[in-house]
Order: sequence, then C-alpha cells, then structure tokens
Amino acid sequence: MGAASVEPIAGLLGEIAASVIDRDGGDVADYIPELAKADASVFGMSVATIDGQVSSTGTQVPFTIQSVSKPFVYALALADRGQEAVLARVGTEPTGDPFNSITLDRNGRAPNPMVNAGAMVTSNLVAGATASDRWARIIEGLSDFAGRPLEVDQHVFESEQATGDRNRAIAYLMRSADLLGEDVLTEVDLYFRQCSVLVDCRDLAVMGATLANGGRNPITGLQVVPREVVASVLTIMTTCGMYDYAGEWLYRVGLPAKSGVSGGVVAALPGQLGIGVHSPRLDERGNSVRGVAATEALSHRLGLHLLLPNERARSGIRRQYSGLVGRSLRMRPSWETALLDERGAEISVIELGGDQGFATAAEVVRTTLAGEGSVRWQIFDLRRAVRIDEAARTLFTSLVERLGESNIETKIVVPSDGAALTQARAIIPGTLLSQSIDSALEWAEDSLLAAHGGAGQLADGLVPLSEHELLRGLDSESLATIEELSQTKVFHAGTIVFDEGDEPDGIYFLGAGLVAVEVRENSSGRYRRINTIPAGASFGELAVVDGGTRSTRITALEPSVCHLLTRAAFTKIAVDHPQAATHISLAIAQLLSSRLRRATNVIAQLESMP
Amino acid sequence: MGAASVEPIAGLLGEIAASVIDRDGGDVADYIPELAKADASVFGMSVATIDGQVSSTGTQVPFTIQSVSKPFVYALALADRGQEAVLARVGTEPTGDPFNSITLDRNGRAPNPMVNAGAMVTSNLVAGATASDRWARIIEGLSDFAGRPLEVDQHVFESEQATGDRNRAIAYLMRSADLLGEDVLTEVDLYFRQCSVLVDCRDLAVMGATLANGGRNPITGLQVVPREVVASVLTIMTTCGMYDYAGEWLYRVGLPAKSGVSGGVVAALPGQLGIGVHSPRLDERGNSVRGVAATEALSHRLGLHLLLPNERARSGIRRQYSGLVGRSLRMRPSWETALLDERGAEISVIELGGDQGFATAAEVVRTTLAGEGSVRWQIFDLRRAVRIDEAARTLFTSLVERLGESNIETKIVVPSDGAALTQARAIIPGTLLSQSIDSALEWAEDSLLAAHGGAGQLADGLVPLSEHELLRGLDSESLATIEELSQTKVFHAGTIVFDEGDEPDGIYFLGAGLVAVEVRENSSGRYRRINTIPAGASFGELAVVDGGTRSTRITALEPSVCHLLTRAAFTKIAVDHPQAATHISLAIAQLLSSRLRRATNVIAQLESMP
Repeated sequence: MGAASVEPIAGLLGEIAASVIDRDGGDVADYIPELAKADASVFGMSVATIDGQVSSTGTQVPFTIQSVSKPFVYALALADRGQEAVLARVGTEPTGDPFNSITLDRNGRAPNPMVNAGAMVTSNLVAGATASDRWARIIEGLSDFAGRPLEVDQHVFESEQATGDRNRAIAYLMRSADLLGEDVLTEVDLYFRQCSVLVDCRDLAVMGATLANGGRNPITGLQVVPREVVASVLTIMTTCGMYDYAGEWLYRVGLPAKSGVSGGVVAALPGQLGIGVHSPRLDERGNSVRGVAATEALSHRLGLHLLLPNERARSGIRRQYSGLVGRSLRMRPSWETALLDERGAEISVIELGGDQGFATAAEVVRTTLAGEGSVRWQIFDLRRAVRIDEAARTLFTSLVERLGESNIETKIVVPSDGAALTQARAIIPGTLLSQSIDSALEWAEDSLLAAHGGAGQLADGLVPLSEHELLRGLDSESLATIEELSQTKVFHAGTIVFDEGDEPDGIYFLGAGLVAVEVRENSSGRYRRINTIPAGASFGELAVVDGGTRSTRITALEPSVCHLLTRAAFTKIAVDHPQAATHISLAIAQLLSSRLRRATNVIAQLESMP
Repeated sequence: MGAASVEPIAGLLGEIAASVIDRDGGDVADYIPELAKADASVFGMSVATIDGQVSSTGTQVPFTIQSVSKPFVYALALADRGQEAVLARVGTEPTGDPFNSITLDRNGRAPNPMVNAGAMVTSNLVAGATASDRWARIIEGLSDFAGRPLEVDQHVFESEQATGDRNRAIAYLMRSADLLGEDVLTEVDLYFRQCSVLVDCRDLAVMGATLANGGRNPITGLQVVPREVVASVLTIMTTCGMYDYAGEWLYRVGLPAKSGVSGGVVAALPGQLGIGVHSPRLDERGNSVRGVAATEALSHRLGLHLLLPNERARSGIRRQYSGLVGRSLRMRPSWETALLDERGAEISVIELGGDQGFATAAEVVRTTLAGEGSVRWQIFDLRRAVRIDEAARTLFTSLVERLGESNIETKIVVPSDGAALTQARAIIPGTLLSQSIDSALEWAEDSLLAAHGGAGQLADGLVPLSEHELLRGLDSESLATIEELSQTKVFHAGTIVFDEGDEPDGIYFLGAGLVAVEVRENSSGRYRRINTIPAGASFGELAVVDGGTRSTRITALEPSVCHLLTRAAFTKIAVDHPQAATHISLAIAQLLSSRLRRATNVIAQLESMP
C-alpha cells in the first residue's frame, strides 16, 4: 500500500531524469489557454511494478490527463459492451493523420480509439443510460485504474469547452455516421470532462501497471477490467498510442504507450510494470519531449523492449524418474518392496517447474511419449510450476487424453496455491488430481501391486517378535524375556497411539495393522503424514535412544496390535541381557543409518534440482 | 534434429486445419504467370518451438518465399551494417499504401523494409562488394534461418524478371534518391532472385522460431543474427508485416508476422515458437486466406497474443532465512555453535527462483533493505534462478553496491550452468561469487565468528577420549580399555583417510585436526564435500553398525590425529564390557537420530519450496 521509493530503483530513475533534464526543446501546448499556464520546467517520473511497488523521481504535480485517458476509457467500453459492439463503431488501424483529423475509416467507423473521433465515440459506449451515468462510470473507472479517487480540474474543463469547436466538428461528423447520439453537444462535453481529470505521474504509473497486471490494480487488488480486454487495449496503444510516431516508438522503445497534450506519457510492459512520466514541453508530433526521451532511456537501460526475446530459460522438466527410484513414504513388507524393485519402471514421474508455455509443454509431451512403451502409471508433478499458460494447458489436456487411449493411468500433483493451482486443475477433471507426490506415488504403487497380485500376500495374524526388524537374529532366551516384559496394546482405527510432545513410554513393535506417522507443520499448524508403518516394523524407538519428548504423532490407520517395550523394561534387559541390549541398540542404529542414507539421497536430489 | 511430429501438437494443428479448409474464397496470385500455376487447394501448417521440435499438418510442398523473405533479409542487413546505416536508408513507419507503391517517406527514405521499395534497398545493404557477393550472403543467410540449404526456382525467377517493370520503376525512384547504386537493374535482379527461393511451411516455422529464439536456429544451434537485431525485425513485422491489415492483425492475432503473394505466412512469438503456413489463395489485401484464418485460430486456441499479460507468477523469492536457521554443513565446536545461535541473525540468506525480471528484482530490493538494520552478511542464493534479465541484473548490481555502502558484505551463490550463470556473473565482479550455498554459509559463519572473537577459542592439543561425543559419560575402566585397544594414527593434510568402497576398518575418534567428508556424485563422478568434522567428533562409526563398505571419502584438511577402534576391538569390548558396547551403540544411534532429525527438517524445507 503506497510503498515508499526503493533506493536503487529511485536512484536509477534519478539518473535517467538527469540525462534528459537538459532537453528544453519543444513548447507547452497552448491551444487550450489553461494548458499554456503549465510550468515548462516540470519533470516527474514513476515506475510501478505488478507487485504494487512504486518508485518516483522529480516533481509530483497534478496535471490534466488529456489523451492519456483514451486507452483506459476504451478498456471500460470493451468491458461494458464487449468487443464486437465496440469494433462496430471504432476501428483498429493506425492513421497517418493528426489526432484531431475529421475522418472516418473505409468501413464508416471512427478510425481508432486513440484519435479524438474514436475517443468521443468510445466515451459514449461505456455503460450508462444518460450522459451523467456514463460520466459516473468514467470517473469511477479511471479512479479504479489509479487506485484513488480522481477529480476534475474545473478551469481546464471550462477552457476545453470554450475552445472545443474542432472537436464539435468531429462530433457532428460522427453523428452523421450514426456513431454518436442525438444530444451530440452533451456527448462532446463528456469527452472534455474526461480529458480534464487531474492525475500525477505516480497515478499514470499505477494505471499502466494495472494494464500490465492483466487489469488488476496492483495496489488495491481490484480487478478493474477483465484480462481479455487488456490485450486489445495494449494492442491499440502499441499501434496508435504515440500519434504518428507509433512505428518509430515501437522500434526504439518497444512499449505500448499513450501520450497527451499536457505532457503526460503512460507505458506498460505486460507482466512487469507501468511507467508514468510528466513534462509539459511537446515535440512537433504532440508527444512530451522529455517523456519520450526518459521512457526510451529506461527501456534501453533495463532491456524492456516488448519484442526482445528473453534469454533461453532452462527446460521446464526438473526431474524425471521411475518407480524404481522414487518411492512413497509408506514402509512396505519385503515382498511388496521386491515387486516394486522388479516392476518399478512401470511407474513414471515427470516433475515440472517454472513457467509452462508452449515450448516447455511440447518438450513434456515428447518426453512422456518417448517412454510410453513400458509405462502404465504416469505422474505429472506440477507442485513447482509457477504458471501454466493456455497453450501448455491445452497440450497437457491432449496428452492426458492420449495416454488414456494407451491405457496409461495419469495423476497430476497440483501446486498448493496460487494461479498455477487453478491452471493445473483446468487440465483435466478432479479425479486425477493429487495433493502430494507421496499420495500419488502410493496410488501408483498400490495399483502396480494390485495389477501384479502383490496385494494378496498380506500376512494373517500377528507377526511374531522373532520376525520383527529390530529383533531378527536375537537368541530365543532374549526374545522370551522381551515377550515377557512387553505389554500388548490394541488400537482402533483412528486412535492416536501417541502425540507430539508426549513423554516417551517405550518402543512399539507393531504386530498387526497399519499406523501413520505425522509431523506438525510450523507454518500451518496442520499435521502432515510423513510415513506409514506396516506390521513387522517398529516405531517410537528413539525413546530408548535420546529420551526426548515425542516429535511425531502416531495414528492407527487400521485396527492395530502392538507390543510395547517400556524404557524401564529396556533398562532391565540392558542389565540382565547386555548382549540383547547391544543387539537392539545396533539394530536401531542400523535402521537410523539406512533412513539417514535415504534422507541424504533425497536431499542431494532436491538440492541438485534447478 | 528434425524431430517427428508429436501427436497432441500435430493433432491440434489438424483440428485447426479442418476448421479453415472450407474457406475457399480468394484467388491465387496471377501477376507473375508462374505463380498462377500453384494448386489452390494446398494447405500446410507447421509449428517449431525454440527447443527445435517441429510439428506439421497438411501438405508440405515447396513454394517460392516471395515477400516472406523480407524480414529475414532485413535481419541480415541490420547484422551486417548496423542499425544506424540501415535506418538512414529505410524507415520504420507503416504506410497506408499498397506494398508496391512508388513512394519515399518524408525523410527521403524507403518507407519501411516490408514494402518492395524498402526491401530492394535492404537486399543491397547486406554485406558484399558485388551483387554476386550479396546474393551469396542472402542465399546463405536464408538457408541458415531455415537450417538447410535452400535453392532458387529458376522458372519463377525468370517469370519475375519478365514481369517486373513496376519493381524496376520503384528501383529507379530509389536510385534517384541515392538509395540504390548505379547498376540498378542488377540490384533489382537480386531482389527477384531472393523472392524466388523455394521453401515449405516447415522451413517458415523454423525461420520464425529462429527469430523467436533470439536469432539462434533451434535445430542447428547456429546464431544466425545477433539478438539485438531480432527485436528490430520483430517490431517491423508487428507494425508492417501484413500489408494494410497490420493493425487488425495485431489486434486479432497478436503475433509479429509476414505474408507473401505465393500464400506463405510466417509468425513468431518471442521466447516460444515459430509458425509457418502455406495456402495459395489470397484475400484482397494480398494475405493468404487460410493462412490468416489458421494463424488466428491457433493464437486464440493457445492464447498466444503478444499483449495478453500472463497470469501473475509467484514471488521470485523462494526462501528467506537467517543464520539462526540456515547453517553450513561444517560441524563446529560447541562454543562456536553457541555464538552462531546468539548472533546468527546477522547472516541473511535470500533464495531466488524462476525468472528474475524488473518486478521480482524490485521485490528482492525491498525485502533486502527492510532487513538491513541487523544484517552484516548477506547471501543471495541464485542457484534456482532460471533467467536474470537485464532489468533485474541492473537492480541487483545497484543493490549490492548499496549494501556495500552500509558495510554489509555480500555473496552471490551462482547457478551451476546455463544462461542464468552468465547473467549472475554479470551482476558483480568475481570475488563475491560462490559455487555452493554451503561455502557461502561457511564464509558468513567464519566472518561472524572472527568478528566476534570466536575463532580464538580453538582447543590446543588432543581432545581426551572422555570428552569425545560418543564416549562422554562412560566409566573410566571402559575408557581405559578403549584407549588400550585403539591405535593412534596421524594423517598429513591432504591425505585420504579412507575412500568410498573401502572395507570398513573401524570407528575413528578425531583427537586433533579437521577432516572433510565427501561423496561422489553419480552424474559427474566428482567428489562433493558434504561435511567437515572437527576434533572431538568421530567418523566411520557405521562400520560397527552395518559393516557395509565405506560410502564416503574422508580427507584430512589439516594435520590430524585419530584413535582407531577396529571392529575386532569393538567385538571384544561387547564381550568383556557389554554395558560399554551398549553405551557406544546408543550414542551412535543418538548421533544418527539427531542427524536424521536435521535431514528431515532440511527435506521438509526443500520440499515446501515453490
């Protein structure tokens, strides 16, 4: 909200101001007496980003917006009436003629909305039954673009009225072509009033940034006009914005822009920023001398040219791996692990990052189809995509359909929030979406195990202690002691076995059932599952290692039976059966060691990602 | 290299072809007899991405390039002569006149390079002392754009010559204004020959993609013209490419493009793709009827409009953390850790990802300066930046200078490769760059410790076994046994203590010195340091846990003294002093447990990143 100038950007603007301030050629517009009173020495410049940061240099004085209003009122008309209704009355071709020429195009329309003829027609196309309603719409709309309530300079308005006969001539020609209504003089007044709205260069920067931001004001967050409208407005600014300097302007500066006779210039770089400049002296074409020079200098300094292709970004594919490498966090019995080790190549994961446009999506299509032969479950991990444009979305939709025809099932892991979440959801209906890569991998693994009959091998009854991973190889006397000293506990599905922060009671050997390990996220306070543990495995073994409070929550997912070996019992074993205690301690260390190895691999993989 | 059509893209092109194939209005050009022979029913369309993937639909037949050659030869002229020399003879403003009008602009130049007058002047501006040299340059340059050797259709060339009097009239006007040389008829022939080069729609797509790719042919990798030239070429295509349909074309289709009388259309979306279409029937303006319709349909379907602002990408800042949270991998003695725990907020890390443009860089500037008061060491982690454009680079340079004025030292962690590496290096001279976040954190920690006198507290002599982390709290009898059973080993700086794949000999207790832990990266085969271990800590303890071969390499960084407890000695202790063995095993488990906790935190942090 109204951020103060940020040093390096304001500094840069200051340098640019210094480089153009000596240009004292040109004259202040004098065809309206009130405009001639402007201080010719004034120079002010602001830049607003689509994040809503504004930086300024020079003098911030109010001035009347004049023709700089034209693209914004055009946007309102497009939003209110739709493109076809507006195009029926106002064309899109640049003219070689002056801004105040009295002509129609070859289809009997006003030539374009940036010449006065087209602007007058446009002002009367905004929503509103009466001129007064339309004025309310215009002043409110311009204020929404600027992010603050704007007002009219009454003196300039009266001066415009007093000297506006050429515009009245244009208006009558428009009426003769049925482009303006009966009450033509009132309709011209609407245009005069619009031109007399007071702004400063900061306002122009924010108005430009609102266009650059797809029609959403980056300060207030208000969606002023729909995004589709913005492309049309910026196009007209590109071809017709700088009077008959438009071609050279685009060549040298490369930004959609609009100038006005009071010395204002607004420019916008889509997806980046808006620029506002104010300096009253005009060149022979009617553009602000310093405004043109400063915008050109800024564009060159920062490489803002719309048609300068960016350096090649890296591939949109961050990682590609099979189910042989990527596994869900679910701990699985050895026969399931063996089956996944054998068949894991049937699961393919492609992880995407950054901006997904046509070129990156085309690469995804090619990469996916190249591996088609062996794959039966395909996961697209879009969590790190920051943007999926329409071209990419279209290609992804076709790709998923194509995979379906080859009997390859697909899951899409969606980003947690932001524009990319909406865009990812638009790829395909909801059933194929997954919130986490882990649940997607688990789905693929379960599908693979089911398809290859792995699911039928689940153990019946309790896993005996002698087959537990921490106790395997232990002598029968020690096993008998452990059995004797441990308590049997039964948990219904949904029961919390222990919670984060609990005092540790001991090691749990899971004899039957399935439990989930969850950690609480610092940011959201929500619990996130990090592991599922099957019968034959243990949990809570850190109790005997470090004695700290529980750092995870354990919840029974199925009816579960545990043998609990308390810390007191373990201490007793350490005294009576020291070899057994050493055996268990080393088994725990071994378990931790293998988990640490796996964690280290995951970190290396994550760290090495682009 | 000449990738086959990719299903979904070709499918999409097929749908678009089907939607326009019924448009049989318009006529084949007949002012050159050879052109009138073209098959009016032909339709072909190709799309080439900046990754070099080409997809096509319809019929691929050769046709003469005609006016579609103009932007490419203009690119060659700009590359050969520079912008000012070309602008002195050929202007940039669109004309309302037909392509073959006989006029100059108000500065006595050919109006623009897309009308015949400007194209003839442009053809004679390419490098070459004679017309024959210039022809060699043109045919070679066009072939480089297409990525294959192109040839002239001799029949069309002769037909052009036979019917080219209007072009000769234009040429003589150009000579009268000193824009063409003495041998004017030869110079016109150069232009006729250029128009008679044979291409197909795939060639046009690749030529367009070469422009979209900043002048580098995406198939061959050849930089055909410099990147700066491309912005000028695409600008002229934007304003003058589609005859007097340019304004409406940009409004409806939103792509820089050029059409020709043989029915070809080329279009380019900077940073994304090139499009080539061929269908001979022309509308009254001279543009291919189906070519215009198909390009418009593709643009709408994929949202390719140049001026459509993209959906807002997420912040360019992925993570921001202080030295209280982010630590180097170096294991430090407790007094150093305590000092870092107290003062870590003086170290700030800002990690950036994705595309860095003006808006994202401005946010980085604001965020950095907001924390300025308490920070003394600032790290910018750019490893995950995929692109740093000129605007962002300029702001980052100012920011680092600004921090220097506030006595804040900066390090920039650079990406490992790609365009972003070059761009990151350009921010500031080499001394501030770091290859890894770990070395940058270590630098900041060392600087902080030195600034606060922490470096003076290093221990002298050997750390006694009783103070080693694995042995603390052990009874003196057990300690004496361990001392007795262990061997003392001395390593010079640079010596490898053990290497990856070695059989494990035992646990090393580091009594003095410093060693590095390194792992070999699968991809590169190079060793990467993952940890440094100081005196008082141990390494190689997994030998007693799992007995597998060594998974890391340990190198002495300083002269180091170790106590080696072999596996045989440990087994002896387990028999004679079982409580001591349990103690050591649990200490190892505890160590592994704390490492695992840390690794889990790192994974959670990495996983939660955008």
